[in-house]
Amino acid sequence: MKIMFTPTRFAGIAALLLTSTASAAPTAVDLAQTGDDPAWSITEGLTTEIGPRMAGTEAEAAARWWATRRLQAMGFANVREEAFDMPVWVRGTEEAWLTSSLLPQKLAITALGNSASTGPKGIEGEVAYFESFDALAAAPDHLVKGKIVFIDHKMQPTQDGSGYGYYGRGRFTGPNVAAKKGAIAIVIRSIGTDNHRNPHTGVTTFDAGVKPIPAGAISNPDADQLVRQWRRPQPVRSDKASLLKMKLILTPQNLGTKQSGNVIAEVPGSDPAASPVIIACHLDSWDLGTGAIDDAAGCAIITAAAKHVMSAGQPRRTIRILWAGAEEVGVFGGKAYFDAHGKEKHAVALESDFGADRVWRIDFKLPESAKALSDRIAAAVMPFGVTRGKQPANGGADIGALVQAGVPAVDLAQDGTRYFDLHHTPDDTLDKIDPAQLRQNVTVWAATLAILANSEDSELP
Amino acid sequence: MKIMFTPTRFAGIAALLLTSTASAAPTAVDLAQTGDDPAWSITEGLTTEIGPRMAGTEAEAAARWWATRRLQAMGFANVREEAFDMPVWVRGTEEAWLTSSLLPQKLAITALGNSASTGPKGIEGEVAYFESFDALAAAPDHLVKGKIVFIDHKMQPTQDGSGYGYYGRGRFTGPNVAAKKGAIAIVIRSIGTDNHRNPHTGVTTFDAGVKPIPAGAISNPDADQLVRQWRRPQPVRSDKASLLKMKLILTPQNLGTKQSGNVIAEVPGSDPAASPVIIACHLDSWDLGTGAIDDAAGCAIITAAAKHVMSAGQPRRTIRILWAGAEEVGVFGGKAYFDAHGKEKHAVALESDFGADRVWRIDFKLPESAKALSDRIAAAVMPFGVTRGKQPANGGADIGALVQAGVPAVDLAQDGTRYFDLHHTPDDTLDKIDPAQLRQNVTVWAATLAILANSEDSELP
Repeated sequence: MKIMFTPTRFAGIAALLLTSTASAAPTAVDLAQTGDDPAWSITEGLTTEIGPRMAGTEAEAAARWWATRRLQAMGFANVREEAFDMPVWVRGTEEAWLTSSLLPQKLAITALGNSASTGPKGIEGEVAYFESFDALAAAPDHLVKGKIVFIDHKMQPTQDGSGYGYYGRGRFTGPNVAAKKGAIAIVIRSIGTDNHRNPHTGVTTFDAGVKPIPAGAISNPDADQLVRQWRRPQPVRSDKASLLKMKLILTPQNLGTKQSGNVIAEVPGSDPAASPVIIACHLDSWDLGTGAIDDAAGCAIITAAAKHVMSAGQPRRTIRILWAGAEEVGVFGGKAYFDAHGKEKHAVALESDFGADRVWRIDFKLPESAKALSDRIAAAVMPFGVTRGKQPANGGADIGALVQAGVPAVDLAQDGTRYFDLHHTPDDTLDKIDPAQLRQNVTVWAATLAILANSEDSELP
Repeated sequence: MKIMFTPTRFAGIAALLLTSTASAAPTAVDLAQTGDDPAWSITEGLTTEIGPRMAGTEAEAAARWWATRRLQAMGFANVREEAFDMPVWVRGTEEAWLTSSLLPQKLAITALGNSASTGPKGIEGEVAYFESFDALAAAPDHLVKGKIVFIDHKMQPTQDGSGYGYYGRGRFTGPNVAAKKGAIAIVIRSIGTDNHRNPHTGVTTFDAGVKPIPAGAISNPDADQLVRQWRRPQPVRSDKASLLKMKLILTPQNLGTKQSGNVIAEVPGSDPAASPVIIACHLDSWDLGTGAIDDAAGCAIITAAAKHVMSAGQPRRTIRILWAGAEEVGVFGGKAYFDAHGKEKHAVALESDFGADRVWRIDFKLPESAKALSDRIAAAVMPFGVTRGKQPANGGADIGALVQAGVPAVDLAQDGTRYFDLHHTPDDTLDKIDPAQLRQNVTVWAATLAILANSEDSELP
C-alpha cells in the first residue's frame, strides 16, 4: 500500500487547511518557538509536522500552509504564496533482485524521478556493465540494446561538492543515453558517498522524443554486491551461465499537471527605491526522507538570518525571502519566480541549499563597484572560520535564472564532506543536523546579509 | 512481491544442489581462494554467493551446501551436515505510518521474528507510549488494552555488548508483556545504536498460552520522529486530538516445521583418546542483510584459525568446527548439537558471534588444573592487544548448553562498540568488515586454539 504523497488520496486537505487557518484555536505552528533558535525551530518544525513534501503533492501544499503561518508568526511582511503549474511524478512499488545468483538476492533500489514504469509484473534482463557514464556514452548500441544497463563509478566525497556534476551525469543523463541506445532499463550505483543500504533518488531527464525507460538507483553496498558477482571468475551454480541478470519492479506514475507554489516573505527596506536582496532555499523535498538537510535547513538558515537583521533595525534594502516550490524535480519554482519577477531589479541573490554543515568559504560575483563591499563582508565572516575563495560565485538552483540574467551573487559555501552521505535518501532526517554548525551558518548569513541589505546604490545598483 | 527466502518458491533447489555437487565442472565454491586470507575469503564468499540465509529456508540449505564444499576444499575432515527440525517464520509486507499527524508519515519498520500478522489490510490504533520496558511492565492493563504499545529507550553502545541484555528486553519479552496486558500490537524503538533508517529485527518470544500480537521495530530516526510528535504541546491540526495514532501492515507467516541443519568439520587430533576442542559460529542469518558481521565473520574467524593450526602440524586434540544452523530464531542448532553430542566429552568450548572487530579481552572459565594453561594463553594473545579479564567466560549461544552442562569455556571478547549499529539490519553487509581487524581476530584465535588443542589431559580432562 502506498498512501502517502498521492494528491488524490488527500483531496480534502486543501479545504482542511483553509479551515485550520481560519480556526481560532492555536496550533503548534502558531506557537512557534521562534525565540531562542529560530533556525532549529524551523528545521525541527517543518521536518516533524510536515515531514516529506514531494513537489506538486498535498504534502507540499501542506508545507506551504505551514510556511506561510510560520513566516507570519515570525513577523515578516508580505507573506504570500505564488502558485504555478508543473508535471507531477510519484513513486510506486520499487523492488529489484539479482536473479543470476544461486538464489535471487534482493537489492535496495529506488526509482529516479521521471523513471518509466516496468508495470506491476516487472521486467527481467541481462545486465550490461559500464564502469562509468563515459563508458556507457562511448559504447556501441549492440552492447546495450535489450539489456538493463548498470553504471558503476563510486562517488567520492569533496568538501565543495564539486563531484556532484561529475559523478552525477550517470543519473542526470545516463538513462537518456541508455534509452537512446535501446536499453530496456537502467540501474545506477547511487550518486552518494555512504555505505548504507539506502539508495539515493533524484531526477533524471529524457530528451524530447526519447521514450523514457525504467530507471533506478541501488545503494552502494548493493552495487558492491552486484560488482562482486559480475567479477567472479566462475558462476556459483554450474548450470548457470556467467551472465548477470536482474529483475526490476518499478511502478512510478505521471499524474499530469498539478499546482505547486513559491512562498515569499519580506523584510521591508527603509528606502523603497533601493533594489532588494533576494535570499532563497527550497521548500519541497524528496519523499524518502523528511528533507532536513535538503532543504529545511536552508530555509531555516536564510530565514533566521533575515530575522536577525530585521530585529537589529530596519535595513535600507528590502530583503525578499523565497522558499521555492518544486526545486527537486526541475527547478519549477525558480523558473516561476523568474517568470514573475525576473524583470524587476534585484541588488544581489544568495541561496542556501547544501545542508547544514558550516560555511567554510565565501565567493563573490559582484560588479566592480562592490569591491570594498566584498572586502567588508569577507572581513565580517572571517572570524567565523570562513575563507575567501578565488572563483566567482555560482548562485544556486532557484536563483539560477536571475544570476544567468546578470543579477550579482554571493555564495556562502557549506562543508559538503558528508552531504552526499544523506542527499536524497531516507536518511535525510533531523537527527543529521548538527545544531552548532546550523548556528554558525545563521551567524555567517546574518553578518553577510546585514552588510548587503545596507549597502549603497553606488556599490550595488 | 516477496520472492526471496520462501522455501516453497525454490522447492527445486535441493535437487539442483545435489546435481551441482555431482557436477564435474568447477564452480566458484570449489575454486575457493583459500590461500592468502581464508577468513576474508569465507566472509566474502558466503555473503556474496549465498547472501541472506534465514533459518529453515532454502537459502539456509544453500548455505549448508556452500559450507560443506568450502570446508572440504580447505582440507578439513569429517565434513557433514546434521539435520534437525524447527518451526519456520518468514517476513511478509511491512509498512507503518503515523496517522495522527497532518499527513500520514511513513515509518521504516520491520517485523520481529515470531510477530503475528495484522492481515493485509493492517490495523490502526492509538499509541500507548512507554519510555522503557520497565515502564511497560509496571503499567496497569487499562493503559495498554486495545492500543499499540510503543517502547522508547534508546540503546547506548558499549564495548563489551553488555547493553544488549538490558535494552534488549523491550524486544525479547516486550511483545509478550504487551500481549498479556491486551495490546493489539507493539512497536519498539530498534535495539540499535545507529541513526540510519534501517530498523533492527530479531526474535521475540511469547509465553505458551499467550496469543502472539503483531510486533515490529522502527529505526532510531523514526522513533525520534514519533517521540517529537508525542511530546508536542499542541496538535499541528486544530481538528485533531493530541492522541498519537499509528497504522501497521505486517504480514509474516509461520510455515510450520521445516528442516535446518548444523555443518560440522574436524581437524583430527593425534590422540584419539583426548577430548576435543569445540569452536562454534552460526551459519544462518537474518534476512534483511547478508549476515556479514552476524555471523559469516564468526565462521570465517574460527575456521581460518583452525586451518592455521592444522597447517602448523597435527594437534593433539581434535578440533571440531560447528557452523550451527538456526541460531537467530531460537538457537535450534546449538540445542540439536547438544542433543546429539552433549554426552560426549568436550575439553573446552569457544564461540565467535559478535562481529569482526578486534579481540580486546580474554576471559576464562576453566578448571583449577588449567591455571598455568590460561596464563600461557593470556601471554600468547597479549602482544595482539588483548587484556585479561576478571570475570568468568560466558561461552556463546550455540555452545550455551554445553557450557551450562559444565564444559569449560574461553571467550575472546570482540570490540562491540559499533556492532549494534549494524546488528540485524539491512546494513549487515560485507563492506562493514574491516579486513585488518578480521585478521587480528584470526591471529588471536589461532594462538589460543593452538595452545588449547595441544593442552595436556592433566590440564583439561
